Amino acid sequence: MEKVCIFLVFFCPQTQQPPSTCIIMSKGTVVLAYSGGLDTSCILVWLKEEGYDVITYLANIGQVEDFDAAKKKAESLGAKKVFIEDLRAEFVEEFIWPSVQASAIYEDRYLLGTSVARPCIARRQIQIARQEGAQYVSHGATGKGNDQIRFELTCYALYPEIIAPWRIPEFYNRFVGRKDLMEYAEKHGIPVPVTPKAPWSMDANLMHIRMDTLDLGSHSCQSHPFHAPADLYLMTKSPEDAPNSPDVLEIEFKKGVPIKVTHVKEGKSKDTPLDIFSYLNEMGGRHGVGRIDIVENRFIGMKSRGIYETPGGTILYHAHLDIETFTMDREVRRIKQGLGVKFAEMLYNGFWYSPECEFVRHCIDKSQESVEGKVQLSVFKGQVYILGRESPKSLYNEELVSMDVQGDYDPCDASGFIKINAVRLREHHRLQGEHHSKH
Amino acid sequence: MEKVCIFLVFFCPQTQQPPSTCIIMSKGTVVLAYSGGLDTSCILVWLKEEGYDVITYLANIGQVEDFDAAKKKAESLGAKKVFIEDLRAEFVEEFIWPSVQASAIYEDRYLLGTSVARPCIARRQIQIARQEGAQYVSHGATGKGNDQIRFELTCYALYPEIIAPWRIPEFYNRFVGRKDLMEYAEKHGIPVPVTPKAPWSMDANLMHIRMDTLDLGSHSCQSHPFHAPADLYLMTKSPEDAPNSPDVLEIEFKKGVPIKVTHVKEGKSKDTPLDIFSYLNEMGGRHGVGRIDIVENRFIGMKSRGIYETPGGTILYHAHLDIETFTMDREVRRIKQGLGVKFAEMLYNGFWYSPECEFVRHCIDKSQESVEGKVQLSVFKGQVYILGRESPKSLYNEELVSMDVQGDYDPCDASGFIKINAVRLREHHRLQGEHHSKH
Amino acid sequence: MEKVCIFLVFFCPQTQQPPSTCIIMSKGTVVLAYSGGLDTSCILVWLKEEGYDVITYLANIGQVEDFDAAKKKAESLGAKKVFIEDLRAEFVEEFIWPSVQASAIYEDRYLLGTSVARPCIARRQIQIARQEGAQYVSHGATGKGNDQIRFELTCYALYPEIIAPWRIPEFYNRFVGRKDLMEYAEKHGIPVPVTPKAPWSMDANLMHIRMDTLDLGSHSCQSHPFHAPADLYLMTKSPEDAPNSPDVLEIEFKKGVPIKVTHVKEGKSKDTPLDIFSYLNEMGGRHGVGRIDIVENRFIGMKSRGIYETPGGTILYHAHLDIETFTMDREVRRIKQGLGVKFAEMLYNGFWYSPECEFVRHCIDKSQESVEGKVQLSVFKGQVYILGRESPKSLYNEELVSMDVQGDYDPCDASGFIKINAVRLREHHRLQGEHHSKH
Amino acid sequence: MEKVCIFLVFFCPQTQQPPSTCIIMSKGTVVLAYSGGLDTSCILVWLKEEGYDVITYLANIGQVEDFDAAKKKAESLGAKKVFIEDLRAEFVEEFIWPSVQASAIYEDRYLLGTSVARPCIARRQIQIARQEGAQYVSHGATGKGNDQIRFELTCYALYPEIIAPWRIPEFYNRFVGRKDLMEYAEKHGIPVPVTPKAPWSMDANLMHIRMDTLDLGSHSCQSHPFHAPADLYLMTKSPEDAPNSPDVLEIEFKKGVPIKVTHVKEGKSKDTPLDIFSYLNEMGGRHGVGRIDIVENRFIGMKSRGIYETPGGTILYHAHLDIETFTMDREVRRIKQGLGVKFAEMLYNGFWYSPECEFVRHCIDKSQESVEGKVQLSVFKGQVYILGRESPKSLYNEELVSMDVQGDYDPCDASGFIKINAVRLREHHRLQGEHHSKH
Repeated sequence: MEKVCIFLVFFCPQTQQPPSTCIIMSKGTVVLAYSGGLDTSCILVWLKEEGYDVITYLANIGQVEDFDAAKKKAESLGAKKVFIEDLRAEFVEEFIWPSVQASAIYEDRYLLGTSVARPCIARRQIQIARQEGAQYVSHGATGKGNDQIRFELTCYALYPEIIAPWRIPEFYNRFVGRKDLMEYAEKHGIPVPVTPKAPWSMDANLMHIRMDTLDLGSHSCQSHPFHAPADLYLMTKSPEDAPNSPDVLEIEFKKGVPIKVTHVKEGKSKDTPLDIFSYLNEMGGRHGVGRIDIVENRFIGMKSRGIYETPGGTILYHAHLDIETFTMDREVRRIKQGLGVKFAEMLYNGFWYSPECEFVRHCIDKSQESVEGKVQLSVFKGQVYILGRESPKSLYNEELVSMDVQGDYDPCDASGFIKINAVRLREHHRLQGEHHSKH
Repeated sequence: MEKVCIFLVFFCPQTQQPPSTCIIMSKGTVVLAYSGGLDTSCILVWLKEEGYDVITYLANIGQVEDFDAAKKKAESLGAKKVFIEDLRAEFVEEFIWPSVQASAIYEDRYLLGTSVARPCIARRQIQIARQEGAQYVSHGATGKGNDQIRFELTCYALYPEIIAPWRIPEFYNRFVGRKDLMEYAEKHGIPVPVTPKAPWSMDANLMHIRMDTLDLGSHSCQSHPFHAPADLYLMTKSPEDAPNSPDVLEIEFKKGVPIKVTHVKEGKSKDTPLDIFSYLNEMGGRHGVGRIDIVENRFIGMKSRGIYETPGGTILYHAHLDIETFTMDREVRRIKQGLGVKFAEMLYNGFWYSPECEFVRHCIDKSQESVEGKVQLSVFKGQVYILGRESPKSLYNEELVSMDVQGDYDPCDASGFIKINAVRLREHHRLQGEHHSKH
Repeated sequence: MEKVCIFLVFFCPQTQQPPSTCIIMSKGTVVLAYSGGLDTSCILVWLKEEGYDVITYLANIGQVEDFDAAKKKAESLGAKKVFIEDLRAEFVEEFIWPSVQASAIYEDRYLLGTSVARPCIARRQIQIARQEGAQYVSHGATGKGNDQIRFELTCYALYPEIIAPWRIPEFYNRFVGRKDLMEYAEKHGIPVPVTPKAPWSMDANLMHIRMDTLDLGSHSCQSHPFHAPADLYLMTKSPEDAPNSPDVLEIEFKKGVPIKVTHVKEGKSKDTPLDIFSYLNEMGGRHGVGRIDIVENRFIGMKSRGIYETPGGTILYHAHLDIETFTMDREVRRIKQGLGVKFAEMLYNGFWYSPECEFVRHCIDKSQESVEGKVQLSVFKGQVYILGRESPKSLYNEELVSMDVQGDYDPCDASGFIKINAVRLREHHRLQGEHHSKH
Repeated sequence: MEKVCIFLVFFCPQTQQPPSTCIIMSKGTVVLAYSGGLDTSCILVWLKEEGYDVITYLANIGQVEDFDAAKKKAESLGAKKVFIEDLRAEFVEEFIWPSVQASAIYEDRYLLGTSVARPCIARRQIQIARQEGAQYVSHGATGKGNDQIRFELTCYALYPEIIAPWRIPEFYNRFVGRKDLMEYAEKHGIPVPVTPKAPWSMDANLMHIRMDTLDLGSHSCQSHPFHAPADLYLMTKSPEDAPNSPDVLEIEFKKGVPIKVTHVKEGKSKDTPLDIFSYLNEMGGRHGVGRIDIVENRFIGMKSRGIYETPGGTILYHAHLDIETFTMDREVRRIKQGLGVKFAEMLYNGFWYSPECEFVRHCIDKSQESVEGKVQLSVFKGQVYILGRESPKSLYNEELVSMDVQGDYDPCDASGFIKINAVRLREHHRLQGEHHSKH
């Protein structure tokens, strides 16, 4: 009974027959998130075969890609219209920056580079769907991953209907393995990649590259079973091959977001969001910063292994944490930290466009009002070292904290503070003692 | 009125006169936490002067120290009895291990090496006080720090009376600067250190070394104002001087604590808590692992700057996080993560011996039942890289997560999952739309 | 595309034809949670028609029911076997008691009487399925509610396959309204109820009665649109008709659960879990205690209106809260309170049999070790009034708190406590001032 | 050593002699929070005796008081200036309303009527101190309570120096019991109350009356040891004596605060904050609403018993909760609920004027944007019954939730939702099974 979907069949609304025999009229227009790769090219053709007009949409969010080639490919495969959109600036300003403010990190390790790109990509796709009067949006995300959810929750929050081929039995039963896609591609004139597929899937954008679902037990370098191969990484140099001396950077923050980065020795600086982030990627990449190999918990309840490289994001995470602790009241920070954990979960699970995420972003933004100042740090051999910080809004009071100067502080007060904090502990102890003495 | 303590005067209970003129009889016995340094040596003599019998107590928790010399010094200064106690094994097993289980980290960065030592030291001091029939315990912690609190809350929880000279006006008004202590020392035959005092205070134990309250604006290396000097570190090599090739270690966990560490190439291994931790310190130290320079929020409400080096603790933090995520259910981990944040705050604030900390330790311990397996990692140039993990209790299911095999998973289900998750978002959107359309 | 399920058709695995034309062989055995009502009677017959052997299972969890009649009805409709199981005692001890310990309350108001019954019922059903070698379990819960989830998550956690007719298009498209069920019943000899159906659904058990999805705009008493009708309630008297003088009860707790209840005036007492709970229901019911009319958030993302009456549970909630605060350390309670909120959400959402709920129950149970003592309270006209409490483990210290006696407390200490707490506030104020003065 | 304060002596700064022998010159001006009662009258005289000029300040926050008589008394006792300030409107709007928005409740029961008044009173006192150029503020709060903290943290946050006589040994050692105060009063021409003091202290304002530190074991009505006496209550009728038929009210909310209350039968309505709250007090008081008898945890670590009556506040708590759940997204509410718990703790502990409380108030206020609509409720015999609610921003969707209409909802989706939620549970179960089968 649970397997009932396997017997699922689509009847043609016109003929009341299964689709292969029915005369297809246009079922409407689909805006397909198109990557140029094998999967979404097959989907493009398949959707047309199914009777849809297909508009392709490819977002430039900083991945390495031949956008022109992708455009031509889409057109040659019959896309009614092709959109190539440069979203890099808005990706940094509207999606990465709030994540930096939030110190968003999933399960204490993952900086959410894929998660944060999805709502950015989907938002534009929906705008295009509206503008073009399309009835559907579609994507090539698989049925086991997080991205389908992130993509579709954005859509449902913002409006349209979705076609997810990898969850339609007719599609996924037809394309069981890569071989089926290859055959289909050859048959339909889709250019077929010549290199064998890597045993991992990849997601790349300005913030990070992610290699997913690498088998734990195979595909690993020979000397170390279970270890990821050394040639996996694309954005970052291996720390072993990185320069033998650090680069020192100064990042200036205002309201919790970077407004300038300066290479201290070279004097070079960047001051637009996209330039700042790109430069931090370059610096982090050169020094092998931001590589992690983790097992994480997907929203759908599985554990998966992810290998990530997030050079610029890792630098910013540390720098922001530093200036935040320097300028933010302890208790505000404690509450903000809890909100940040929630924000990271929402982001990971695909709830960027949700009332709760809007609410939390508003609160976190509020908390960042005084988070300003400069952080100096060095990047070296895979690591980020905070060297120092200064701020006009610093709550660090050198005189107050000094061991040689009393400042406006009376050590006597600490006695009372401690004793009152101990009242409860002594009561607990008194009661424990009473009970012990009775036995 | 606030400054009233300045006029505070002690009257001798015998003579009803200020103490300098009163004939002193023994006021009782004090167990003094004695470090062998200038401050606690002066306190020892001052307490005697004040009419107390003084027992000194020096805990070996892994700091570099000439314990014999300290013993002789205490005796020569008139200590009635001298205790030198090796607490290293219990420090690791009863204090560091629970912190590893909890992934205890304060304000996202500090691994709590000082905090976790205090209850360990104070516990033994109280045992000695009880055993020796002493009425008081005393310590040399300053009136602005966290350690006085950690020390004294342990005492109040467990029982005795405390003398904290640095909060007694008569003491701290007499010893305003280091010069006063030096003069007093010379006058009373206390050996005077010949090297000038560093502009920071230091706390060292098996887990870490901490340099505190370094002025932000001075005492820094010339080329980088605000930066900590390079020669500050004692437990860790500079990453720049560290070996050019990594060491690969395998750490085996059971119930969330390490039970074995193996050097993968050399085959060498350690399997008692103290040996494991010491070896991780050695490895981490060799590769410059665990250095941080942070501003943190003290319990008493000030921000202070701390420079820490925690080589073994840093390795364990990462390794434990990895095996935990691998073997622990996502939602259990989420709850445990919240408890760990609370635990870290309690630990930092000195509440180890409190009902809430006992409760939370119990809960965290429970959460670790299945946290077992092996983590392989490399240490290199200041960084810890997780290379892989395996576990008999792994919740990672390769078949389930595979993109090529369906496993016991139906992609159709994800559609329902997403749509139901979207019900709420669509309602929100519907209402927003209604309101917008009305305006 | 979204509506694709509407065209869903089952093919007979034997004949590869749609079911109406295929020769049915037994598809296996189903254990059906059977209530004796119209819906599950129709399901029983429909399942047989579909080719299943059906075992019915009716749990007695305290609802008012003619169990013998239900048994006969099931048999007459062709049930292969009929189980009537009295789960009342285990319901109280294993499910209600942990909820009392947790102070489990959903969205600040709902005491979770339905939620807590589901895992109890489903657990026994699965035991029966195992014992009888059944391949499936089935239930009559609708596709929009929480109960389907609670039921099925228990099943999935514990093992078998599920048939949920109200989510099978063939079933729900056949039985669109009550009329269809009535016709089907008549046709298949199912006794048809003569009274018209109330405009709400009802769920009754020992803990509460719940009236669900009452339309907000209709079915209400005439004088007050939107108000629930006065004759809705079954377990509780209307407060207006309740006795004009209170009953005073004393409830004794040990480890956070009631071990005895005594009627103070009458001297009557109960001391087994089922008797205690039943007696509290009687007392609460007599005085109209525990009625609420709320809108709540279902797990599937809708808001629904629920009218509840929880007489005994309401009394226990208040009494337990009182003895807990009396005997539990403040900070332990604060952590436990957070766990209790999480527990309530898990319970509501159907995750009783989940690793996280097992973990949280363990933690909460641990927190209750010292929660013992007696609470006196009165029930009167819909309200519970706590009158007083006493406990051998009380942390209330009359001398300490007295305004006339100092106890072991020095008022001076409060000055230091306040001043240290103010350090942070003054720093904040100082900085604000600085900034203001600059403008 | 701990008792050192007992030997504390003030030396006169002029003569370097103990104060009794020194010639007093004015030490500056004190603004004293003056209640007109015995304690603060004695403090007034004592402060003058100590050499201060005293300005008295009495805030009208809704308590029953003869303000004219208090004014005359203060003048007759030598107050340099007398301020009587009507703060009732700002108390409701700026302090009670945010608490209503937050659903602020301490330890699940206490509605914080005293806590919320302190920052309101202290704020004005500080304004007066500034305006009058006073160096000090003073109050009569005892050294064991919460109010001293609430008062003084406000002061420290906002600026001045504090004199707290009940924590100055010279004062509290002189006035050990009420007898000492009476003698002092007689000696200094302070009118002495003729009625014996009740065995409890009282705090009254517009929001509530609180009777504190009633001994648990005495001062109780004879028939029920430990019970509070029936004649204790002042704002509320005994439920037993309350009317035998309910009053039905309709409260209209906008942005989470009430903007109108209407008596449904009488048609009478109120629409300014102060009028609304006063009317709810009247209604609640008439029906005995809002009485609780609890043990609570003070900030200083003691448990104390408090008897409260909060008629209007209790009605608003329930009505606000109802309209909030009706109009607020589930997940926003969950986060807001957590913030509300934190807000309640801050408020209780005296941190209204703290950066964290300002931050949380801002966040909660944001969450209330859509909390609008009308709630109908009845008050009867001590209880508040929600009867119904309606709102233009309701997220309740009758069609969606209906069991008879599908609305925009496909029951099939629930299957996928449940199965995906079960993935994790099944993995857990699978692993448990594997382990079990091995043993």
